[in-house]
Amino acid sequence: MFFASDNWAGAHSAINERLMNETTRFAAAYGNSDLDRTIEARFNDIFEKEVAVFFVATGTAANSLALANFAKPGGVIFAHADAHVIEDECGAPDFFSGMRIAPVEGTAGKIDPARLKARISRFPQDAVHHGRANSISITQATEVGTIYSLDEIRAISAIAKENGLPLHMDGARFANALVKLGTTPAEMTWKSGVDALSFGGTKNGCWCAEAVIFFDPEKAKEMPFLRKRAAQLFSKSRFISAQFDAYLKDDLWLDLARHANSMADLLREGLASSNSVRLAWQTESNEVFAVLPIERMHAAHAKGAKFYDWSEPANMAQPVQEGEMLVRLVTSFATERKDVEDFLEIVQAG
Amino acid sequence: MFFASDNWAGAHSAINERLMNETTRFAAAYGNSDLDRTIEARFNDIFEKEVAVFFVATGTAANSLALANFAKPGGVIFAHADAHVIEDECGAPDFFSGMRIAPVEGTAGKIDPARLKARISRFPQDAVHHGRANSISITQATEVGTIYSLDEIRAISAIAKENGLPLHMDGARFANALVKLGTTPAEMTWKSGVDALSFGGTKNGCWCAEAVIFFDPEKAKEMPFLRKRAAQLFSKSRFISAQFDAYLKDDLWLDLARHANSMADLLREGLASSNSVRLAWQTESNEVFAVLPIERMHAAHAKGAKFYDWSEPANMAQPVQEGEMLVRLVTSFATERKDVEDFLEIVQAG
Amino acid sequence: MFFASDNWAGAHSAINERLMNETTRFAAAYGNSDLDRTIEARFNDIFEKEVAVFFVATGTAANSLALANFAKPGGVIFAHADAHVIEDECGAPDFFSGMRIAPVEGTAGKIDPARLKARISRFPQDAVHHGRANSISITQATEVGTIYSLDEIRAISAIAKENGLPLHMDGARFANALVKLGTTPAEMTWKSGVDALSFGGTKNGCWCAEAVIFFDPEKAKEMPFLRKRAAQLFSKSRFISAQFDAYLKDDLWLDLARHANSMADLLREGLASSNSVRLAWQTESNEVFAVLPIERMHAAHAKGAKFYDWSEPANMAQPVQEGEMLVRLVTSFATERKDVEDFLEIVQAG
Amino acid sequence: MFFASDNWAGAHSAINERLMNETTRFAAAYGNSDLDRTIEARFNDIFEKEVAVFFVATGTAANSLALANFAKPGGVIFAHADAHVIEDECGAPDFFSGMRIAPVEGTAGKIDPARLKARISRFPQDAVHHGRANSISITQATEVGTIYSLDEIRAISAIAKENGLPLHMDGARFANALVKLGTTPAEMTWKSGVDALSFGGTKNGCWCAEAVIFFDPEKAKEMPFLRKRAAQLFSKSRFISAQFDAYLKDDLWLDLARHANSMADLLREGLASSNSVRLAWQTESNEVFAVLPIERMHAAHAKGAKFYDWSEPANMAQPVQEGEMLVRLVTSFATERKDVEDFLEIVQAG
Repeated sequence: MFFASDNWAGAHSAINERLMNETTRFAAAYGNSDLDRTIEARFNDIFEKEVAVFFVATGTAANSLALANFAKPGGVIFAHADAHVIEDECGAPDFFSGMRIAPVEGTAGKIDPARLKARISRFPQDAVHHGRANSISITQATEVGTIYSLDEIRAISAIAKENGLPLHMDGARFANALVKLGTTPAEMTWKSGVDALSFGGTKNGCWCAEAVIFFDPEKAKEMPFLRKRAAQLFSKSRFISAQFDAYLKDDLWLDLARHANSMADLLREGLASSNSVRLAWQTESNEVFAVLPIERMHAAHAKGAKFYDWSEPANMAQPVQEGEMLVRLVTSFATERKDVEDFLEIVQAG
Repeated sequence: MFFASDNWAGAHSAINERLMNETTRFAAAYGNSDLDRTIEARFNDIFEKEVAVFFVATGTAANSLALANFAKPGGVIFAHADAHVIEDECGAPDFFSGMRIAPVEGTAGKIDPARLKARISRFPQDAVHHGRANSISITQATEVGTIYSLDEIRAISAIAKENGLPLHMDGARFANALVKLGTTPAEMTWKSGVDALSFGGTKNGCWCAEAVIFFDPEKAKEMPFLRKRAAQLFSKSRFISAQFDAYLKDDLWLDLARHANSMADLLREGLASSNSVRLAWQTESNEVFAVLPIERMHAAHAKGAKFYDWSEPANMAQPVQEGEMLVRLVTSFATERKDVEDFLEIVQAG
Repeated sequence: MFFASDNWAGAHSAINERLMNETTRFAAAYGNSDLDRTIEARFNDIFEKEVAVFFVATGTAANSLALANFAKPGGVIFAHADAHVIEDECGAPDFFSGMRIAPVEGTAGKIDPARLKARISRFPQDAVHHGRANSISITQATEVGTIYSLDEIRAISAIAKENGLPLHMDGARFANALVKLGTTPAEMTWKSGVDALSFGGTKNGCWCAEAVIFFDPEKAKEMPFLRKRAAQLFSKSRFISAQFDAYLKDDLWLDLARHANSMADLLREGLASSNSVRLAWQTESNEVFAVLPIERMHAAHAKGAKFYDWSEPANMAQPVQEGEMLVRLVTSFATERKDVEDFLEIVQAG
Repeated sequence: MFFASDNWAGAHSAINERLMNETTRFAAAYGNSDLDRTIEARFNDIFEKEVAVFFVATGTAANSLALANFAKPGGVIFAHADAHVIEDECGAPDFFSGMRIAPVEGTAGKIDPARLKARISRFPQDAVHHGRANSISITQATEVGTIYSLDEIRAISAIAKENGLPLHMDGARFANALVKLGTTPAEMTWKSGVDALSFGGTKNGCWCAEAVIFFDPEKAKEMPFLRKRAAQLFSKSRFISAQFDAYLKDDLWLDLARHANSMADLLREGLASSNSVRLAWQTESNEVFAVLPIERMHAAHAKGAKFYDWSEPANMAQPVQEGEMLVRLVTSFATERKDVEDFLEIVQAG
């Protein structure tokens, strides 16, 4: 019953196998192998356009370097107050970009366009003292399990264009959002105005496969240097490529995300229909937030279930009561139906 | 005939297998799994002392963060003029540490102690304008295939201690040097005055396994933050641990390094005994530098041999002549005897 | 009628004169002259303790280097949401310290202790992902013309001590606050738990005289290097010293601040007693915030009065109405009574 | 007998007077006053072209921000091994630019064009591992008292243009070089291919007046933000302008430099004609390097002469002998003929 995070899962067997095959041969290092070229081209297919692809070690690196690529002195990045780039990266985006991040509020983990507009207006392009608006970062799926609709993405990107700001998407859970929306990678990104994407494979079945993707390769000319100076250029880069090779083949990545989402559906249904337990808020991806009686939480922990409690946000429709706990439950490609069922049984009992 | 670099090799089967086993289970992320703990303890055994271990993505990251850990404003790092930290890391050590690197000359790729002393004396601890000496970095084995003897390491570390400077060792090819010297990891590091080590596994049979090791854990308190801010904390960190598990088990790592070295011995012998070809200088590790008739070089390339030409250093005993080329040949755990023999046959012919 | 800012004023004649005297002689550069030593010692007297003093070029430099002096990777600085370090320094404190600033709300421009506590608790010392609390910065007098009482400073410093965080005071308008509170420099700083002070002289009659003061010299050992690397070490440093010499002599600085404050008192009284105009909120230092009919504002501008309009903060007791404008009026050592009277006459008329 | 450095001098009376006049009025802060505009226009006249001018606090700031303005990740700056940017700025240029400086050798403190070419060729524009050439910095007059002829500047700038690199000139002693060459500011800079200039006034009679000048204003669009983020934007900026106003008026700056140079001529003549003392090498500006019997050095110190000894460079035509000392003597606008004569008398005696 592992619901702590999707990065507690291992790696998918097809990805393992492909990795193994790759290990038996020699090939050029530092991203110059035939396989690296092949996979870069694969991303062109997936996004229906020529893109620039840069593999890096972690999601934090992908976010940080994507933002650093657009950096200017005195620049200000706008992101949701709960965004990973603000809350979970130890200041790496600030460090690599030399800029600051201004938090923007919004319900359900999504940037509120009106507030974004207001916030940006405080940082005009000639604001030498205050600083100037530089870029916007959104997270898809969000940190709290919700998903921006295409219209919502376009509302943000319209503001970005009006202000001449590039739009970055943190896609650590890109696949989970994509299959839920039932749209294409192109639609969810550049066709909706996204300029740069952190494309995450690690949480969805790879063991380590993260990429930064720029939809206008002309605007990513500094990236090879930014990446190398950031110590993020793998010598055996093709082992990242090999993972992506299997990940992207025959839509495996979409299948894995669908599985994770469906396991979360199962959790959502079970929790929603329970008397003792409730959903903290509605989610759509592979993250579920629930309010449990503390005693049920202990029971679940006692039986080996792994999950984290979560800080209660302001404005919860039905606040956490004395004797209750807000917890986060994350499913993954590796989550088994039986684990979900066992967990539901435990928390619903009592 | 792959002699371009040891990072052109794949990964060893035992390491692959261990990695596969690890992928089927769930475990805590970000270095908090049981396996991460086990491997950290393994390093204590190997170095015969409690050490602090930090996994990172690349050798450049290991070097940069090791040096950043000791950083002070206005600090100056001393390294050999040919060192990887100066020549091959795009300024990453400077970027992460906020310091500068002062090159020190020395024959055979090794820092000359007298020159080091003289160089350090130019940067006293109160030199606000000039900058102050901060740390020393040596490479073992060196970039040009040579190896510091224990006495040579101690000569450097004595200067480090006199000046109150920590000593870092770039051990991208640590194992190759270790087995050649026939000494212990402890002797080649902290017992000889080394304070921090970049311990490389990638070039010697892992697919991606690099660690920074501090021999006084008390002096590495900032590292968890430095690493995370550098976007170098893997979520599935245990897959690095799994590689090290197999790598370190039953001295596999030493066997792999011995194999690489012995393949280089074979190359050295063959080249030394040839009439048309000669060793550019004496090496001891898995790197061999040779002077070939250009026409032999082309012949080798034509038959599929992979290797790089190399800039001629100043002061070569027998300079490269018109019609000749200086090339670098690197062997690895995966080099096969037949490839060496075939290569020698090609370059010796004609 | 110059009320735009106190840095629109020139320099006081006594300071000019002292500067002139100093220019006719030779003396050691880079802070090593006899005069530099003398003035450093003067600061010891003023603060009743041995302090470490570092002259810098701007208030932004003073704030940035004070905070950089305590910096650690992943560190988070806490400051009021309206603080100069957040709003008006183009990210310089972030740039020099390599850290982030977390805004804390509070009425009247002052950090609310309860909110500060809550905010700090989100950044515990082992929070590798989130970041860790590093330091607190308060502004005295605040950006909105209010002043922390000694008790209020102590409430903040108590939280700082509990959490092991150094407390910085941005004293760009230190003197204005000091004379208003009628306390001593020592009481308003280290005796109330302040660890570092940006001591501003420029706004109060110098032409360029800013210093960072550390109340525990042992904790400022890195500052000489931080300052030089920040390009903030003046060669003719003694010309800063000369300004401070006159500034501090015979309590000139306190007299100048008293004058500025009294001119603001005059403004406050006049505005408070008017029918057409009102104080936006109560202030105590040399800054006054007023709500004017737009037409009165235009009239004042037309007659040559200089002042800026100001963004309306949330939660104003009596919000700005249609047809009104919120403006900031700043007095200085050089403000003349007649100018205040003329201004009042204009805005009250109509 | 103050020959320690030209920054030991005070400030010229005409500059003082102008500064005084300025202090009695109010005017807009942060470089927005009428006077700031006037002086910026004055620089257009002096350089016979529209330039972008940015005042900063120190020569180190001028150099660092000029180089930062052209910075790219992985970039490498080329400067003479003895340059101030390498030897005397505590790493500030590296810190502000995020780049490294590669030293280039050359006799008489000037970059050797052939060596420069060779050095640059090691850093091609696609050298992700090694780093890429970014810019060149020369010092006029040099650190060792020599002066680049126009032809020599053009030889360097030709290499810069060939490689697409901007050329920066550190002009801390710009005026001394200019009057010696008897050329125009335009000829010595942009007409000879210089792109950015650190224009120093402090060493030549101002108390603090340094500017960065860009000869193509289009290429300095980031500078307002770079300067503010560097904490180098003076609030009372017009007091820098006032100094430059007097400095540039009626060629005062050229007269002051001519005086300093002529005092150095006097020193050079006296030393050259002496039996006991000799010039270490030929200089042309206001710096003189001499070899004295140690006993004469002590005698001079005993009589109150101020000057520094100097590290002996490699390859001195006539090396320093046992019992001798190499010293640097710097004259300034404030040096008096009698002091030179007294000094010569002391060192020639015995």
